[in-house]
Amino acid sequence: MALVGLEEIRAAQKRIAGVAVRTPLMPCPWAADGNRRLWLKPENLQPTGAFKIRGAYNRLAALTEEERARGVVAQSSGNHAQAVAYAAQLLGIKAVIVMPDTSPAVKVENTRSFGAEVVLVSPAERDEFPSELTRSHGYVWVPPFDDPYIIAGQGTVGLEIGEDAPDELDTVLVPVSGGGLISGTAAAIKLTTPGVRVIGVEPELAADAQGSLRAGTRVVWPVADTYRTIADGLRTPAVGVLNFEHLQAYVDDIVTVSEQEIRDTVAVLARRGRIVAEPSGAVATAAYLHRAGELGMGAPLAGGGGRVFAAVVSGGNLEPKLLSELLAA
Amino acid sequence: MALVGLEEIRAAQKRIAGVAVRTPLMPCPWAADGNRRLWLKPENLQPTGAFKIRGAYNRLAALTEEERARGVVAQSSGNHAQAVAYAAQLLGIKAVIVMPDTSPAVKVENTRSFGAEVVLVSPAERDEFPSELTRSHGYVWVPPFDDPYIIAGQGTVGLEIGEDAPDELDTVLVPVSGGGLISGTAAAIKLTTPGVRVIGVEPELAADAQGSLRAGTRVVWPVADTYRTIADGLRTPAVGVLNFEHLQAYVDDIVTVSEQEIRDTVAVLARRGRIVAEPSGAVATAAYLHRAGELGMGAPLAGGGGRVFAAVVSGGNLEPKLLSELLAA
Repeated sequence: MALVGLEEIRAAQKRIAGVAVRTPLMPCPWAADGNRRLWLKPENLQPTGAFKIRGAYNRLAALTEEERARGVVAQSSGNHAQAVAYAAQLLGIKAVIVMPDTSPAVKVENTRSFGAEVVLVSPAERDEFPSELTRSHGYVWVPPFDDPYIIAGQGTVGLEIGEDAPDELDTVLVPVSGGGLISGTAAAIKLTTPGVRVIGVEPELAADAQGSLRAGTRVVWPVADTYRTIADGLRTPAVGVLNFEHLQAYVDDIVTVSEQEIRDTVAVLARRGRIVAEPSGAVATAAYLHRAGELGMGAPLAGGGGRVFAAVVSGGNLEPKLLSELLAA
Repeated sequence: MALVGLEEIRAAQKRIAGVAVRTPLMPCPWAADGNRRLWLKPENLQPTGAFKIRGAYNRLAALTEEERARGVVAQSSGNHAQAVAYAAQLLGIKAVIVMPDTSPAVKVENTRSFGAEVVLVSPAERDEFPSELTRSHGYVWVPPFDDPYIIAGQGTVGLEIGEDAPDELDTVLVPVSGGGLISGTAAAIKLTTPGVRVIGVEPELAADAQGSLRAGTRVVWPVADTYRTIADGLRTPAVGVLNFEHLQAYVDDIVTVSEQEIRDTVAVLARRGRIVAEPSGAVATAAYLHRAGELGMGAPLAGGGGRVFAAVVSGGNLEPKLLSELLAA
């Protein structure tokens, strides 16, 4: 399959304008560390609380009239669900969302609040059920990551980072699950500023993408393993097929973070960054804070001042109870 | 004194570009209510965690070489302190900050982390001490609100709201303390879109600005009274002289919120808005959520869809312990 190009990402940027928030890059003086500085891309500011609205709206806005009339179906542990429901509501399209019954209640409620019909299934059934609905009802399937429109939509994160970043931008850190966000972001970064590194971040307990990139072939982890991580948005057992091609073409490396590092970083992002990140949303920042050795210091600057790491905070949907627990720790 | 005009606010916008974050307006579908919709202006994203960097940087960047060499002194309960310290550090200017010894520890520590010298005094001494330092050491005084450069800098919040807001913008809700933020914001809004309402919000326990606007003359509240509110950034006993002129010229009304409404709104902003607001930063959103009657519904829309209220979330610096308490409530 062809990789997503700049033209498709720029078309997505036009399509989502006025729907997705044009998030800024936030300099974080509290996180400066020797030669390194941190800027955050706060996707928790999106109307659905995560970057997923970018890809979902780009996909739905490009449907034909006939496809819109049929309605759409999606399957998601949470943030893609809310995004498809919200995009469908804005465009006047019927949406059915299949969610695992282990999803955080806050994500299920939010999805319903956008007018979507939610079907809860066991994690084992989650792949079967949507195709059944597609067959029986004619709904259009909206994939969560393995799709050029979704990748192009998420790629607008990379375009915006490129527009806002200072010249000293050295490395972009991106959470990895199915690979939609990192595929699009890495394509946008590498096709505009090839000297900037793009590094993916996963939980140690769901490190299938790191395994895939290092083995040179897509590795699948058992759901029983990936479901151990607190980062409920990053439990996908494998990156998508098209996504893996983007990883091989554009991603420099993938590093992992521990459960404790993820928990700590949710608290640090609230206390020092003044934003609410869900565990999945905190992994890139966790890598900056805790894995400096693996990330390297970036290229040294002639004039001093330090190299910039940009970390994508991919979302902020977590149970209020978990947030107050992590903050009280 | 002359009111601050658009030209001065636009000059400030150029001066602070690349230093203050260009914050977005965030649509909040979770807060839609009948004919009303809420958009947030999240100034907690600023590098010092509050809008104050806009005015402080605008003031310091406009100093002469001779003034820069003398150094600056400021007095603040917290957010202005951090802003002056950060701006001074970026511009290579010595800064001495006088803070009341009742300031949250997090604000004192952050101020020191930007390289400023912090002098802690009792709330009663806080007005005397800086003028003493100005006389004895020659430092340039950087006022927190009663100054045209500070007002113009804070006014960039209003310019940005005007640039980003949908046509349905009906009302801008702004926290009021000394009046720097609301003076500049109201000037920018009324000089570009006079049909949009600008309404200030204060705690009931520190409602000097409402009293002043209604009496037609500046009312001063005893510090013993204003210090009762949890909103530690809004305890100023009176609006500034130049600020009061802006209030009279450009502000439609001032409403108040209760302590419980402020506490609840800090929790709601974290849970639903996914941002960390300090109590002072939450008052405008609290008014939208709890004082719909006093605010009115805004003008009805011919095509349906609802009128937009924009609420400025002015900052996010609060003690981690207080944040987890409010979230656990």
